[in-house]
Amino acid sequence: MASSDSLADKVIEGDVRATAQLIRRVDDGDKSVFSDLAKLYGHSGRAYVIGFTGSPGVGKSTLVDRIIARFREDGKTVGVLAIDPTSPFSGGAILGDRIRMQRHFLDDGVFIRSLATRGKFGGLTRSTADAIVVLDAMGKDVIIVETVGVGQDEVDIVNSAHTSVVVTVPGMGDDIQAIKAGLMEIGDLFVVNKADREGAAKTVREIQFMLQMNPESRRSDGWETRVLECVATQQKGVEEVYIAILNHKRYLENQGKDRLRNLERNRVFGQFMDLFREGLFERALNKVGGQQALDKIIEDIVARKNDPYHASLESLNRVLGG
Amino acid sequence: MASSDSLADKVIEGDVRATAQLIRRVDDGDKSVFSDLAKLYGHSGRAYVIGFTGSPGVGKSTLVDRIIARFREDGKTVGVLAIDPTSPFSGGAILGDRIRMQRHFLDDGVFIRSLATRGKFGGLTRSTADAIVVLDAMGKDVIIVETVGVGQDEVDIVNSAHTSVVVTVPGMGDDIQAIKAGLMEIGDLFVVNKADREGAAKTVREIQFMLQMNPESRRSDGWETRVLECVATQQKGVEEVYIAILNHKRYLENQGKDRLRNLERNRVFGQFMDLFREGLFERALNKVGGQQALDKIIEDIVARKNDPYHASLESLNRVLGG
Repeated sequence: MASSDSLADKVIEGDVRATAQLIRRVDDGDKSVFSDLAKLYGHSGRAYVIGFTGSPGVGKSTLVDRIIARFREDGKTVGVLAIDPTSPFSGGAILGDRIRMQRHFLDDGVFIRSLATRGKFGGLTRSTADAIVVLDAMGKDVIIVETVGVGQDEVDIVNSAHTSVVVTVPGMGDDIQAIKAGLMEIGDLFVVNKADREGAAKTVREIQFMLQMNPESRRSDGWETRVLECVATQQKGVEEVYIAILNHKRYLENQGKDRLRNLERNRVFGQFMDLFREGLFERALNKVGGQQALDKIIEDIVARKNDPYHASLESLNRVLGG
Repeated sequence: MASSDSLADKVIEGDVRATAQLIRRVDDGDKSVFSDLAKLYGHSGRAYVIGFTGSPGVGKSTLVDRIIARFREDGKTVGVLAIDPTSPFSGGAILGDRIRMQRHFLDDGVFIRSLATRGKFGGLTRSTADAIVVLDAMGKDVIIVETVGVGQDEVDIVNSAHTSVVVTVPGMGDDIQAIKAGLMEIGDLFVVNKADREGAAKTVREIQFMLQMNPESRRSDGWETRVLECVATQQKGVEEVYIAILNHKRYLENQGKDRLRNLERNRVFGQFMDLFREGLFERALNKVGGQQALDKIIEDIVARKNDPYHASLESLNRVLGG
């Protein structure tokens, strides 16, 4: 326990190696980090969290790279979490994302890590929330979470950010429009990247049209959701994106503490629930009787001696009382 | 209860309206269907389940439409479940999918429904498994499950099929290649649709290369995973896809009962676990003390009087004993 405690202490002092180690253990699903995380939690709650989401290939990492640089110019320290759940089997985040941001690796004020947690039960959401606590307690002013924006987990992750940025590119076709409709409600800010391509203005109009058609879908009451064009690789429009993020931050702060408190409350709720759900499932399976009991249950269902519906009720009664 | 029982009886008799009603209630998360599902379960286990997955826009629905027609020519009845989790907020499956298959709506031997279940805890996986039980008990010979193949839920769904078909199109770019790597392990059969487009042969080679590089990633031992080209809209290559599906079916049957029994066992395991997990969570939250107790827990964490890690442990001990 002494060494665990000292890991949290080192993170609070800003130790990069200890932070990297703790986040890796979070990503590995190592339960022994809980006491460290609990200790760090009291030192968290100060960082500003920004979510970036969008399909693969829209240039999120390049844009994030530019935004990191801008925050650094303003003297802010930045933590970045690149989330990659698109590859459920290959293990590990897409290498390119990290390569694109590598110029920041030599900067002490920037800390970049990928999370690739596997498994169910909101594993990804939970490890992201834990990693945010770590970077927050480490003292980073701004935490950027980058996701590819496809599953419910990622929607939850981006929704827990203070400012949420949805990135797209011109002309992604009809089906992508349908997906975009699902992302409408999580964006405080939309960025059409690679806007030197044909159809950029059209894509901007389409997003604006969808926003107008679904006013109730806006993420923040009273905030005028912006749709911006940029070409991140050429540094065009990046400043406007940066300013829009700062404007949204100011908007939230001017809304008073209620608004920020609500965001915080939602994040805490999600984090608690994920922890509760995971622990519950694990302990309950033990109470059912472990692998052998489980095998018998499954065999009976396969043989049609029982069905999954009665079998699950019977097991629940055994665990929690009838 | 009498009316519930008669709903299951009607499904077993092949009643389309009762089947539609039951599947709608499954999709709505209506718990009162459990007794019907339990009854139907004893009549299930006969259908052959085929999964089709691929990104939006690759032409899955058109290909599925053609495959349905081929099964009908061979005198087989077909159930189709179109799964759409890409839009977490808009509610309901993409309309186009159903439009593309609408010529089959007048055919008694084909039953098509969309599932769009929201929420977490494997909700989509569970409702799909339940709907498969319904269509199976209704007497459909073949059940086709179509997904857009992005999240873990969908990987699980397609993995539970007897034959799993991954559909793609030429030239989806580097990032899609990365995603494809994640889909490698769930395909018994790969189809490059819209193969009249530039780059079809290259895409076929890329998939073959990835399969060769990852021999351990093959879904079925001893089955030579096929990569086929087709242009579903022009009926080109569809027969080859159909034959490859039948070949895989025959391969599974020749592997003896063990192989099929394993697939069945995996599906049952997933279905039981999803039911168990969902029921467990619901009952446990009640034991914690409902909304009011939960609000207090969250408030304490937000105020940093507690942290999510200790709070979840305390709640778990309250529910299951320390």
